[in-house]
Amino acid sequence: MMKQLVDNEVFRAFATYASIVLVKMMLMSVMTSFYRITRKVFANPEDAAAQSRGGDSKKYIRTDQEVERVRRCHLNDLENIVPFVGVGLLYALSNPDLSSALLHFRIFAGSRVLHTICYLTPLPQPSRALSFLLGFLVTLSMAFSTMRRLLYI
Amino acid sequence: MMKQLVDNEVFRAFATYASIVLVKMMLMSVMTSFYRITRKVFANPEDAAAQSRGGDSKKYIRTDQEVERVRRCHLNDLENIVPFVGVGLLYALSNPDLSSALLHFRIFAGSRVLHTICYLTPLPQPSRALSFLLGFLVTLSMAFSTMRRLLYI
Amino acid sequence: MMKQLVDNEVFRAFATYASIVLVKMMLMSVMTSFYRITRKVFANPEDAAAQSRGGDSKKYIRTDQEVERVRRCHLNDLENIVPFVGVGLLYALSNPDLSSALLHFRIFAGSRVLHTICYLTPLPQPSRALSFLLGFLVTLSMAFSTMRRLLYI
Repeated sequence: MMKQLVDNEVFRAFATYASIVLVKMMLMSVMTSFYRITRKVFANPEDAAAQSRGGDSKKYIRTDQEVERVRRCHLNDLENIVPFVGVGLLYALSNPDLSSALLHFRIFAGSRVLHTICYLTPLPQPSRALSFLLGFLVTLSMAFSTMRRLLYI
Repeated sequence: MMKQLVDNEVFRAFATYASIVLVKMMLMSVMTSFYRITRKVFANPEDAAAQSRGGDSKKYIRTDQEVERVRRCHLNDLENIVPFVGVGLLYALSNPDLSSALLHFRIFAGSRVLHTICYLTPLPQPSRALSFLLGFLVTLSMAFSTMRRLLYI
Repeated sequence: MMKQLVDNEVFRAFATYASIVLVKMMLMSVMTSFYRITRKVFANPEDAAAQSRGGDSKKYIRTDQEVERVRRCHLNDLENIVPFVGVGLLYALSNPDLSSALLHFRIFAGSRVLHTICYLTPLPQPSRALSFLLGFLVTLSMAFSTMRRLLYI
């Protein structure tokens, strides 16, 4: 079984693009930490205490528009990458054409990178809305393709 | 391998119900956007600017109880559908009976639709708590069944 | 196929540890409900009404630092356990050594339990930061190992 999966090009393509978007999402945690530490904006007293070196740390327990923006971008990734990974795996196991599978995976990965750039720059709307929509439609397309092939209700 | 999976009824049932609940979760994004645009309630200045047509857009950067309700419902989906998809896939691959697998998948999907109706109407408690609990127990049941069959620690 | 998967020790180990961390994450929902009910801190008017037994329920619609701490811990689980489950499944299917797979799965599960203890006690930093980092690096290591074996771009 393992041998067959490892040799299957659609599965290998899914494994590659799913890993890319999941690692990309993980980098949002690093970015949040970076913003919190450089701007001294914390949610927990113990975090503020660790960064204030003996001074009054309470004033660093606050919210900041840039930090909240990064957090919203991270949550949006979670809301969209979870369906991609779940639906995409089932789609990859449903015997699609390699070329259309690659098209779906590549457009999705590209749309999420674009979405993050639009969100964090920020670029004027509707750039972010369109990049979100692109990834959303790709996932819907895979879900309907999977249901058409495998439907058992 | 692919051939065998595509022919396996439990896997096909899982693929169907997992796609349904993931698409249902994605629709919460659409609902949030709809509420934000119709009520003019935005989190980002660039979103408010795009909707205010040259007027003063800052007043639209605000929170609204209805929008926050939809967002909590979306987050609750994420917190519950992620374990269902992860645990459910492992369960589906652990050779369960078709009839008990279908029972688990159908009750979970039904409980999440009920939960959303209870949350957004809103219906008085404990209707939402019970629909949450139903899906929660179904996922726990699949997790214990999977661990009993596959345990390797 | 099912037979082969059920007999594969790496897959069984992944199924075990993924179920453990997903159930651990689900318990955060129970903990949030417990804190909300015992402290009478609610986000929804219908929840406050159900708990106030005819008294003035509006005063219970509020935020509380302990409840927010549990919710941040839950969200952090979601942000880290989702990549572990997605990347870990692909890694488990990419034919890794059993011993190195077990090492990855065990360290990750341990790091998330430690993270929760550090967050909820709370222990002084950098204890929480280090437990987060440990799980983060384990997931990255699995992602790079998977991409090295399966890359198809």
